[in-house]
Amino acid sequence: MNDSYLKFVNSPFGARLARSLGLPKPEVLRRYRGDRPEFDGLIAIGAGHEPRLFDALAKLVASIGMTSVAHESAGLWVPLANRHGLMTGRFEAAEAGSSGKLAALLFDASGIEDSSHLEPLYGFFHDTLRSLGQCGRIVVLGRPPEACASSRQWTAQRALEGLTRSLGKEARRGITANLVYVEEGAESTESGIDATLRFFLSPRSAYVSGQVVRIVQSSAQSGTQGGAGGAHVGGGTSALAVDWAQPLAGRRALVTGAARGIGAAIASVLAAEGAHVIGLDMPSARDALAATLRPLNGTALAFDIAAPEAPAQIAAALDEQGVDIVVHNAGITKDKTIAKMSEAAWQSVLDINLGAQERIDDALLAGGILRDRGRIVAVSSISGIAGNLGQTNYATSKAGVIGRVQSMAPRLRARGITINAVAPGFIETQMTAKIPLTIREAGRRMNSMSQGGQPVDVAQTIAWLAQPGSAGISGQVVRVCGQSLIGA
Amino acid sequence: MNDSYLKFVNSPFGARLARSLGLPKPEVLRRYRGDRPEFDGLIAIGAGHEPRLFDALAKLVASIGMTSVAHESAGLWVPLANRHGLMTGRFEAAEAGSSGKLAALLFDASGIEDSSHLEPLYGFFHDTLRSLGQCGRIVVLGRPPEACASSRQWTAQRALEGLTRSLGKEARRGITANLVYVEEGAESTESGIDATLRFFLSPRSAYVSGQVVRIVQSSAQSGTQGGAGGAHVGGGTSALAVDWAQPLAGRRALVTGAARGIGAAIASVLAAEGAHVIGLDMPSARDALAATLRPLNGTALAFDIAAPEAPAQIAAALDEQGVDIVVHNAGITKDKTIAKMSEAAWQSVLDINLGAQERIDDALLAGGILRDRGRIVAVSSISGIAGNLGQTNYATSKAGVIGRVQSMAPRLRARGITINAVAPGFIETQMTAKIPLTIREAGRRMNSMSQGGQPVDVAQTIAWLAQPGSAGISGQVVRVCGQSLIGA
Repeated sequence: MNDSYLKFVNSPFGARLARSLGLPKPEVLRRYRGDRPEFDGLIAIGAGHEPRLFDALAKLVASIGMTSVAHESAGLWVPLANRHGLMTGRFEAAEAGSSGKLAALLFDASGIEDSSHLEPLYGFFHDTLRSLGQCGRIVVLGRPPEACASSRQWTAQRALEGLTRSLGKEARRGITANLVYVEEGAESTESGIDATLRFFLSPRSAYVSGQVVRIVQSSAQSGTQGGAGGAHVGGGTSALAVDWAQPLAGRRALVTGAARGIGAAIASVLAAEGAHVIGLDMPSARDALAATLRPLNGTALAFDIAAPEAPAQIAAALDEQGVDIVVHNAGITKDKTIAKMSEAAWQSVLDINLGAQERIDDALLAGGILRDRGRIVAVSSISGIAGNLGQTNYATSKAGVIGRVQSMAPRLRARGITINAVAPGFIETQMTAKIPLTIREAGRRMNSMSQGGQPVDVAQTIAWLAQPGSAGISGQVVRVCGQSLIGA
Repeated sequence: MNDSYLKFVNSPFGARLARSLGLPKPEVLRRYRGDRPEFDGLIAIGAGHEPRLFDALAKLVASIGMTSVAHESAGLWVPLANRHGLMTGRFEAAEAGSSGKLAALLFDASGIEDSSHLEPLYGFFHDTLRSLGQCGRIVVLGRPPEACASSRQWTAQRALEGLTRSLGKEARRGITANLVYVEEGAESTESGIDATLRFFLSPRSAYVSGQVVRIVQSSAQSGTQGGAGGAHVGGGTSALAVDWAQPLAGRRALVTGAARGIGAAIASVLAAEGAHVIGLDMPSARDALAATLRPLNGTALAFDIAAPEAPAQIAAALDEQGVDIVVHNAGITKDKTIAKMSEAAWQSVLDINLGAQERIDDALLAGGILRDRGRIVAVSSISGIAGNLGQTNYATSKAGVIGRVQSMAPRLRARGITINAVAPGFIETQMTAKIPLTIREAGRRMNSMSQGGQPVDVAQTIAWLAQPGSAGISGQVVRVCGQSLIGA
């Protein structure tokens, strides 16, 4: 569980040695702590031609209390920020120098309709990237390419992926870079622009980089759109009032595999955000489960999810009060090359990692136990995206999880339920501690953070997707991998 | 351009040394040669519940003249193969041993409708993988997940990606593994099942592994579907008669950047398959272009595609006879971190790699110069998928190319024109020869083939997509990367 190189290289002597030998020096990532301000410092704003998201961004910046500075590409920001009563100034490249005085870079590319208009992105990041401090944040905003009216616009918007991912690989120093596509009409708090930008600008997303997230109109919105008014669209007041300190207050959350490791971290983070956690694990892990849930005032359920009767038992246990959030975290590995793998090893991995998720959701959905506007988050894996040697069973199951969220998202939309997957990369757990040293070191370092993630990084990502204010995010896969080199 | 390690380690002394030191031993890949049989040896057939593609597969196996052996999962294959007059037998795991007697493994998973029915895939690859010889081929066939009727079926079909990609990483020894999703009704030769399976089973696809290709009904087919009969669907005779030795006979192909490197290889392969090649390059490369095209009896066009007047000039030069195939290969790199990159380096890379493609296609499409049933293939890059350090400009342009093919595919469908991208990984060229040694070695080895690809590998992939018989493949990105570890 320990990355001793990370500790060593950040000690005074280790840092000097690493510098003289030219060794990589992974940054100690800044993570969320309740006793420190979540948002702090200067955020530089850039924009392409006709930025469409400035209103939403001004509200957000006001809400998180950061001070904005406008790059020359974002001339319209200053008067708008003034109208919103924001502290704001102008970004001057010369004075900023390389002093790392910026905490975040935010670029609104939503109005770019042609590849010949991408130059402001160059200008903004050319001028500002060196001024971005350690563990800084880069967020690029665009429109979902597939919803663009013209082929030229689609092309230009799709091009943002290549830029954002390159910035993540270039920036280093614990800096993350992510791309958020906001559909026209999905600028309200409920759809998820606030929850998402807060997440990507916060230390909560310490190990999430190189990701692309789409926010579309939530079902509630598109429902009202048909009627007269369409009050949610294009500004106006939002129907959703969020307590950002406790966004999950009053929500009941089922977490499978909650006794230890990533599952325990998920239970802990969801509880910290106000949810009542119902932790589920094997009967054999009963004591560990109780120990995890006790300080959270959670409820323990001891079932073997592989058992045929488990879904009905879980449904019965939750029936009275229902549940708002289901996190499918339980999973196993039984690694072997396929030629040496037993049929039982294939079958049990498929059944527990994929089949059990399907059966449990069926039981919870059929009985209406998962309430309207519920949130399902399933744990996939980078192996499910890229495949992995010795993991035909595991990768098949985790690719299936991706299919599950993609297929169910449109079917659950009418009830306002979202379903998404998180795909962890190398996360420091008891499981990864057993990997032989050289392979473990390669896995740890082959990402833009040059280190493994922590269980809490996965948990924070799930907590963002589980919020009531993430209604426009569904059917998606978010990697928690420090922008691992590995992919498909 | 030389991978001297690959040569050394395949010499008698080098092989002995590598073995004793535990060094990787990349396989010398078998590539297509006109003087050797393209298809040869035994192909093992496996299947899940109710395989739907057996008819099409039996025709294909008959056409390529391979001998099939049926795994126990494919009980229906033997009587069907007999009806098609195929040489066939039964695969016996015990007798096959690890002698590498199989040339290809083909699994029809099209009928699998639930994740609990994936076990036959395990059984088949568990039994057969060790018997697959060097440079063997693995192809898994399924249905496009997004077209599946139920969420369970979508999930099971999507799971195939994790399996296929893991098999590619496990198999090594120059073996490729690819997944082909065939839409219901797209089983005809014209849609592309024959061209695609021939490609993936042939030495032509030596460096293409870990890829997922979708074949849908071609526009010609879906056009006739509305009428009475729908004769193309579900068997029957195909309208398309292909001369597989010269599938591009009578087609005129424009290739940009044709003077050298990958472009010259594309020109050469398209000509070998019967196309008349019109090679385009900079006026400064006139002599090299002429030298490349002379033995191909091609036509040379010397234009600077960055010039505003170039699209009209190219259109005028092609106007009389029109063109059937357009390969957008021309591209440049100007690598620097964005903080150090000049505006000119950003702008020229975007303009030549992306803007010029857009302008040329506009000119050729507007004038009807690109004929109905035409084929556009654009060269993207792994950098466009994953981003790359020092390549914000290049990665943005190449991500834009992906957007271009995705956005234009539906718009060109009515005319029967397809548009696809190929994304090369590490290809041995003059460009990669300039990369510093240690970075070059890392790039070369970080893929399932443990080596870089050759320009001809990119060219063969383009030739497959350019065939008249690839009508059901459009809007897709095929990597030519030996299943590089790098991705998104």
